[in-house]
Amino acid sequence: MSSLRPSPIAPTVDFDRDGVQHGFLRLPYSRDDSAWGSVMIPTCVIRNGKGPTALLTGGNHGDEYEGPLALYDLARTLDPKEVSGTVIIVPAMNYPAFRAGTRTSPIDKGNLNRSFPGRPDGTVTEKIADYFQRELLPRTDIALDFHSGGRTLDFVPFCAAHIRPDKVLEAKGFDAVEAFSAPWSMKMLEIDAVGMFDTAAEEMGKLFITTELGGGGTSRAETVRIARRGVLNVLRHAGIVSGAVEKVRTQWLDMPSGECFSFAEDDGMIETMVDLGEKVEEGQVLARIHSVGRTGVAPHEIRARMSGLLAARHFPGLVKAGDCAAVVAVLVG
Amino acid sequence: MSSLRPSPIAPTVDFDRDGVQHGFLRLPYSRDDSAWGSVMIPTCVIRNGKGPTALLTGGNHGDEYEGPLALYDLARTLDPKEVSGTVIIVPAMNYPAFRAGTRTSPIDKGNLNRSFPGRPDGTVTEKIADYFQRELLPRTDIALDFHSGGRTLDFVPFCAAHIRPDKVLEAKGFDAVEAFSAPWSMKMLEIDAVGMFDTAAEEMGKLFITTELGGGGTSRAETVRIARRGVLNVLRHAGIVSGAVEKVRTQWLDMPSGECFSFAEDDGMIETMVDLGEKVEEGQVLARIHSVGRTGVAPHEIRARMSGLLAARHFPGLVKAGDCAAVVAVLVG
Amino acid sequence: MSSLRPSPIAPTVDFDRDGVQHGFLRLPYSRDDSAWGSVMIPTCVIRNGKGPTALLTGGNHGDEYEGPLALYDLARTLDPKEVSGTVIIVPAMNYPAFRAGTRTSPIDKGNLNRSFPGRPDGTVTEKIADYFQRELLPRTDIALDFHSGGRTLDFVPFCAAHIRPDKVLEAKGFDAVEAFSAPWSMKMLEIDAVGMFDTAAEEMGKLFITTELGGGGTSRAETVRIARRGVLNVLRHAGIVSGAVEKVRTQWLDMPSGECFSFAEDDGMIETMVDLGEKVEEGQVLARIHSVGRTGVAPHEIRARMSGLLAARHFPGLVKAGDCAAVVAVLVG
Amino acid sequence: MSSLRPSPIAPTVDFDRDGVQHGFLRLPYSRDDSAWGSVMIPTCVIRNGKGPTALLTGGNHGDEYEGPLALYDLARTLDPKEVSGTVIIVPAMNYPAFRAGTRTSPIDKGNLNRSFPGRPDGTVTEKIADYFQRELLPRTDIALDFHSGGRTLDFVPFCAAHIRPDKVLEAKGFDAVEAFSAPWSMKMLEIDAVGMFDTAAEEMGKLFITTELGGGGTSRAETVRIARRGVLNVLRHAGIVSGAVEKVRTQWLDMPSGECFSFAEDDGMIETMVDLGEKVEEGQVLARIHSVGRTGVAPHEIRARMSGLLAARHFPGLVKAGDCAAVVAVLVG
Amino acid sequence: MSSLRPSPIAPTVDFDRDGVQHGFLRLPYSRDDSAWGSVMIPTCVIRNGKGPTALLTGGNHGDEYEGPLALYDLARTLDPKEVSGTVIIVPAMNYPAFRAGTRTSPIDKGNLNRSFPGRPDGTVTEKIADYFQRELLPRTDIALDFHSGGRTLDFVPFCAAHIRPDKVLEAKGFDAVEAFSAPWSMKMLEIDAVGMFDTAAEEMGKLFITTELGGGGTSRAETVRIARRGVLNVLRHAGIVSGAVEKVRTQWLDMPSGECFSFAEDDGMIETMVDLGEKVEEGQVLARIHSVGRTGVAPHEIRARMSGLLAARHFPGLVKAGDCAAVVAVLVG
Amino acid sequence: MSSLRPSPIAPTVDFDRDGVQHGFLRLPYSRDDSAWGSVMIPTCVIRNGKGPTALLTGGNHGDEYEGPLALYDLARTLDPKEVSGTVIIVPAMNYPAFRAGTRTSPIDKGNLNRSFPGRPDGTVTEKIADYFQRELLPRTDIALDFHSGGRTLDFVPFCAAHIRPDKVLEAKGFDAVEAFSAPWSMKMLEIDAVGMFDTAAEEMGKLFITTELGGGGTSRAETVRIARRGVLNVLRHAGIVSGAVEKVRTQWLDMPSGECFSFAEDDGMIETMVDLGEKVEEGQVLARIHSVGRTGVAPHEIRARMSGLLAARHFPGLVKAGDCAAVVAVLVG
Repeated sequence: MSSLRPSPIAPTVDFDRDGVQHGFLRLPYSRDDSAWGSVMIPTCVIRNGKGPTALLTGGNHGDEYEGPLALYDLARTLDPKEVSGTVIIVPAMNYPAFRAGTRTSPIDKGNLNRSFPGRPDGTVTEKIADYFQRELLPRTDIALDFHSGGRTLDFVPFCAAHIRPDKVLEAKGFDAVEAFSAPWSMKMLEIDAVGMFDTAAEEMGKLFITTELGGGGTSRAETVRIARRGVLNVLRHAGIVSGAVEKVRTQWLDMPSGECFSFAEDDGMIETMVDLGEKVEEGQVLARIHSVGRTGVAPHEIRARMSGLLAARHFPGLVKAGDCAAVVAVLVG
Repeated sequence: MSSLRPSPIAPTVDFDRDGVQHGFLRLPYSRDDSAWGSVMIPTCVIRNGKGPTALLTGGNHGDEYEGPLALYDLARTLDPKEVSGTVIIVPAMNYPAFRAGTRTSPIDKGNLNRSFPGRPDGTVTEKIADYFQRELLPRTDIALDFHSGGRTLDFVPFCAAHIRPDKVLEAKGFDAVEAFSAPWSMKMLEIDAVGMFDTAAEEMGKLFITTELGGGGTSRAETVRIARRGVLNVLRHAGIVSGAVEKVRTQWLDMPSGECFSFAEDDGMIETMVDLGEKVEEGQVLARIHSVGRTGVAPHEIRARMSGLLAARHFPGLVKAGDCAAVVAVLVG
Repeated sequence: MSSLRPSPIAPTVDFDRDGVQHGFLRLPYSRDDSAWGSVMIPTCVIRNGKGPTALLTGGNHGDEYEGPLALYDLARTLDPKEVSGTVIIVPAMNYPAFRAGTRTSPIDKGNLNRSFPGRPDGTVTEKIADYFQRELLPRTDIALDFHSGGRTLDFVPFCAAHIRPDKVLEAKGFDAVEAFSAPWSMKMLEIDAVGMFDTAAEEMGKLFITTELGGGGTSRAETVRIARRGVLNVLRHAGIVSGAVEKVRTQWLDMPSGECFSFAEDDGMIETMVDLGEKVEEGQVLARIHSVGRTGVAPHEIRARMSGLLAARHFPGLVKAGDCAAVVAVLVG
Repeated sequence: MSSLRPSPIAPTVDFDRDGVQHGFLRLPYSRDDSAWGSVMIPTCVIRNGKGPTALLTGGNHGDEYEGPLALYDLARTLDPKEVSGTVIIVPAMNYPAFRAGTRTSPIDKGNLNRSFPGRPDGTVTEKIADYFQRELLPRTDIALDFHSGGRTLDFVPFCAAHIRPDKVLEAKGFDAVEAFSAPWSMKMLEIDAVGMFDTAAEEMGKLFITTELGGGGTSRAETVRIARRGVLNVLRHAGIVSGAVEKVRTQWLDMPSGECFSFAEDDGMIETMVDLGEKVEEGQVLARIHSVGRTGVAPHEIRARMSGLLAARHFPGLVKAGDCAAVVAVLVG
Repeated sequence: MSSLRPSPIAPTVDFDRDGVQHGFLRLPYSRDDSAWGSVMIPTCVIRNGKGPTALLTGGNHGDEYEGPLALYDLARTLDPKEVSGTVIIVPAMNYPAFRAGTRTSPIDKGNLNRSFPGRPDGTVTEKIADYFQRELLPRTDIALDFHSGGRTLDFVPFCAAHIRPDKVLEAKGFDAVEAFSAPWSMKMLEIDAVGMFDTAAEEMGKLFITTELGGGGTSRAETVRIARRGVLNVLRHAGIVSGAVEKVRTQWLDMPSGECFSFAEDDGMIETMVDLGEKVEEGQVLARIHSVGRTGVAPHEIRARMSGLLAARHFPGLVKAGDCAAVVAVLVG
Repeated sequence: MSSLRPSPIAPTVDFDRDGVQHGFLRLPYSRDDSAWGSVMIPTCVIRNGKGPTALLTGGNHGDEYEGPLALYDLARTLDPKEVSGTVIIVPAMNYPAFRAGTRTSPIDKGNLNRSFPGRPDGTVTEKIADYFQRELLPRTDIALDFHSGGRTLDFVPFCAAHIRPDKVLEAKGFDAVEAFSAPWSMKMLEIDAVGMFDTAAEEMGKLFITTELGGGGTSRAETVRIARRGVLNVLRHAGIVSGAVEKVRTQWLDMPSGECFSFAEDDGMIETMVDLGEKVEEGQVLARIHSVGRTGVAPHEIRARMSGLLAARHFPGLVKAGDCAAVVAVLVG
């Protein structure tokens, strides 16, 4: 019944109009400091006649920057004359989180990527999810959602698509990942995909790819270049932007579930014993957690549960029991 | 008159006793959640007979990790039999800041490295400074204070000593920096040295060296190895630990004042156009600041005011007007 | 099923007892600072035999003061001998918000006027809504709910009733508004009435009127006099209090949807170019938003989308993108 | 449908393995300061072959200490050779609340003892409740859940079981309470048992006993001794630990509903006129609330609504309208 | 000695250069979220050859808007060709407070107008005061500092100068006030002038005028027009801007000390019984404070201690014991 | 020089007028939520002709209740006809702390009892200290300042006076302590008396006694009775109130410095092994600190450093490294 109620979000752009439009998704949000206030999510539509529709998104988590940097840039520079079809750019999906520089929304602590399919009468974050679920995804042919590690994780830069039951769609996803041309490419099998944007798109049968392009709540010149090249390559690959894909050699990886993750069981100061992209052997010490209340106490060791390459790690210098300390991935092919 | 009053800090270690002691500097701190509470600063003394005294410190700023990691490790592993003289290790000087993972103290917002000479009846941070000023520095021959960029800056890893009026002491400082053997070495001329630990030590005529070994509020396996090697090298160089210095080639840099710093004049999302250690030409765009309230707006550009190498940069993805965006250093020799 | 569960709220007054009772709606609220605590909502019942029941409410939003001022006064001074029937006075419905001086509840950020019909096992705000929905509204014949603009909006003072499908009830509403005798009277068509107290009352077929009597989180002597006169007039009009309505000439207004609202698209300092009650022409600049990060930058202009009179405006000196900047209403009759 | 989804909690212990295991219930919790973080709830399993299973819990509310003190101690010292069956010890059920020293969780303000049966896709607190509901309670024969008054209430120390419709189970509960051997024992009739752990256990037909062993957010040597003796007595009584129950004389009490509770109607400074365990007569002044804004103002008096003994009272020196000021219980037998 | 140390503030404008410059006062401010950050205070210099210097300031308190609105506008529109001499415009002196919309600085809770003469090594607010004290005031001939009531007070709009011992300077001040042409003009005798910007300027023998142009944390179109006209009038009066003063009739007022102020002695909801600008008689009830914890309680009355006109009042609907509730002024001439 | 400036505090009572006056010390305090606000410290003066002056104070720390309870009561009930001389009662000296229920002031984190002699131009807390220092203490003959343990400590109830160099004054102090007639009496030798109210009074040669009457942020009926009896006894003993001292047997204690205090060196959950007033032997375990991150870890033990009686202990269930865990006192006489 809830699904019958229309979204409260009012776009100031017309998704069916040709040309370039810079506008907003306006989401009414009454609160103590603005009785009749709204959240204004910047949105750009670049359309040129018939053709497929790409939905390009960043800021699903608010502390990840390669995607927003590439997408604000693309929105400002993409010439509609180069386009065949429609490019919808939402560079900062969870805009309240993005403005705060935090993974989740400061309004409701909502993790947008665990809030799908959302609710039109839910929290601000659920209302955003619902709008993508019911308004934007249905008009999308290919979706590219940029992620990085955010303030608390760091990744080797990769583009990824999911293992999917429909092997035709799966293959199309891997092709799009190849086209993106990140240094690494990942075949992902999500352990818990409930509530993800990815899942929402895939359950509608959409082509969906994503990335992890670094982390730490920053970006590097190199990772932004990867993002900028990648998004244009994907639009070219999809036939929406003219020109050939700029191919770069990529190394495929696999993150088999369970054993690749190592969790901290203690609070303390963490010491990475291996840097990202380095090879590791099963049983090797990946990280040590130092107790800081006294000197003279031996650190706790966290060891690799399988051999491979260090694909991700906890970023901040302090760690809490339960944090993911390290992720080992396996080289493929 | 204030200086006549004794420090309220009570050490639980005896700086004149041989052997290894793991204890605390106990600083009484009455507060709402502990009427008769204290701050307990972990402190280790490793002494073996007569000889020079080294004061090794980390956590002067609470979000910098290479120093604490090397020093907790050293405190746990250094055998007094290898030592001739005294090694005083305070791996987390501003311990409240260190526990919070923040540059300044959560108690009083004190920046310890701008609080010298401190006051025995001042804030908690000023009491810590006063204890180093009046109790620890006077018994020190050589001081090594570890820094990194913290959560908001990132540096190419270097060890540094100051340009000093006493050229004999200056030369000794540069020798110790060479001994440390970081990839880069810096001859530093501080623009504003008021309140620094460095200044306090140097005004007493002590040998003082410092570092910037990375940043972002994290550490890497590589930078921690630099820190660990460096501290042992300095102790060997000073004759306190036996054995030869493990020399590695270092590249000297200079940060001439003023023109090497570029400040943001706008709030927004920052894009580094150059990565750390890369060469830059005067006038080159070092970074761009993107306005995020709308798409379609041209970014503000920040250009290099001199040629050199990108030695440091703003780390987080968001930037505020007034933040230092980039630092260019000049290659020497 | 949830509706079968009784409300946890226990009133300390008996709504069926004659005379004056000053008591509370006690709502159990266990929390960190009171394991067995409650919210105590002041409630007054003044009853004299049979006759209609009026439910008089203020503090639906906690930062609006004309209603509470008139109602605490009425509760203290209304002589039951003047009454025929029952007057239920809840001068501060969302009492936690009222004590905090905020629109929404500090406990759960609940906007009471978007929380109907509420839930007996929901948040504190939802429990309050549920009690009005299931206990107080069913025994009500006429409800008067006082509003003003609160801390972030300012209105010309008016009394209002809704356009309703049942034209007999609608006419009764407009008659009651005329009786209230505010300087302005409004025929309201809500765009989004979901969750409102108004809607809850009207769906039960109750006579319901409301007000907007100023704003800014304050009140003026003049607007409180309007409120005091208005509530007595309504009770007289309803035959609950003896005596004739004290009629004052009112000007009817209409707020046709959409075009009467102007929203800010930028953050900054807002400058109202028109004062409340002044006439405006379509296209006229209603407000300007000044960028404050630098001097020398042209402000953004917000223009009227229709002609009429400035009926409401954003109150604080700073504004955020998405805030309602101005409301234009049309003079009727 | 929600109930079909598995719990996201992953235990690191095997409840069916013999011996002593010290591990965790790991509950994934993604948040701003740890994208891939978890809550780690310490859990101990001590098993020795077949036999009944006891579930021993503390920290259901995070500011109650007798239970956690007795249970961390028991987990460390109970020899599996003394055991016949299984002892599951979760000394700090609502671990985030326990670490914060607060009644409810700092993450979601969840009161665990009002969150049953919980939800696998709900808040962190609801996920904990769900895990006990669906995983731990089903394998339990006898549950002992420790409570005390927490920071805002203080109790005479008692063990309690509920009046239950099944009189066989009720009698078994009272027998277990006798075995616990606290100074007082209570036959409890809950007025509002919705959402309680007790109710969840009893609805599955489990033997369930609980305690209130003091309060004020502290513990005393005496009350901890009561807890330690009690838990061993209950395990002996259940035949899980060998040896005879160490019986101590207990005095039974009854808390008949309604009249035994006295609530404050005013904010102020509270003065207890009677100490815990003292006799009171109906009408006697139990407490006074002093207005503190001025001197010279008479305090409000709170009087006993029935005769009995002061069994509980508001603990902090300040009180708010709506707080439970005092509870009178009746001596039984 | 402290005064010998130079200000850490670095202006990006040259106060001696002809033409229009839009720049900043850059104040280094190292903090947790920016190790090498700064406060950037927007500053405009408009200079045309020799002639007197006017220092025009707003945002001394951060929640007062008429001044900033008039000054950002003036900075953008004043043509240097109209100027003879120098106009220095700092529209938001306490810029951190201004950005927060608060009276005092969110950084250090500093009330800039009680922080003079300031300190170069003090808090951020003291550093701002010091810069005005030692750098800007010495080069000033006439200073106009805009104030309004801010979020918690409301005033009839007036311009004011102080009673000064030097009657020549005093007369010049009153002439400048006449030139400003606000509806009301005030001869002010400060009771406690310690730390004020006014005092700092006057002790240097400068011509200094100020205003109170409304309040409530907002502005009205009318009061902004007064501010805009006033500042131009003052520049014309000083011979810095060409053209005749646009004179408007003003009514002079006096605020004799002590008896004109009425303070609340109780917390509660305040009811203004008189509106701004209305006449009052000694003994008349100016305001009532309603106790809100219960209905049926008589309000506390606050009475006028002298006859005159209501010149200022407490603005928010809630009041605390100790707040100034009302100010009565006397009509002069 | 600072001392020449008058206090900003304005009393609304006249300390030289006969009869009972209930008023305030009004301390101007401008802040964001009240531009012209004040702190209002309730103050009562009861005077009857010539005679000595007693200054009776509570709430020096804001979370200690026996003193305020006895003093609000005394202010309301003491008949001036019983008095010879003057009784000044300030039941809540650090009124902002008292209203917050915290040891220190929420305004400035000031610990009033470490703020003497204070400053008229300092923080709010320093201004309060200055007023007592320069206005109230000089007119005092005997001062009684009530303390208890507050929220984080608990004491056996005692009255105390200091060891003083002037043995005549010391003896008078011990006599007054005897007159107070608490169950325990303490001869106190302060280790660090800098900044205390006690010291301020004693340095003026005043008779000064104090108490510790319990703690935990609560009070008991018994301890309040001790306070009420004590204050009247002291007034009788001083000849200010007529009638004989109501003597009760007291046991004298001594807290010899250093060895009587035991500090925690670890964070965790604390277990008191001894209750207040119980005898302890040197070396006995006074408390244990349990690590709570895992089960199965041995607790840290805190042992008595001398024999005696447990006079005070840490109150909350959680403890931090550096907290005072226990205080042992020695029985005297």
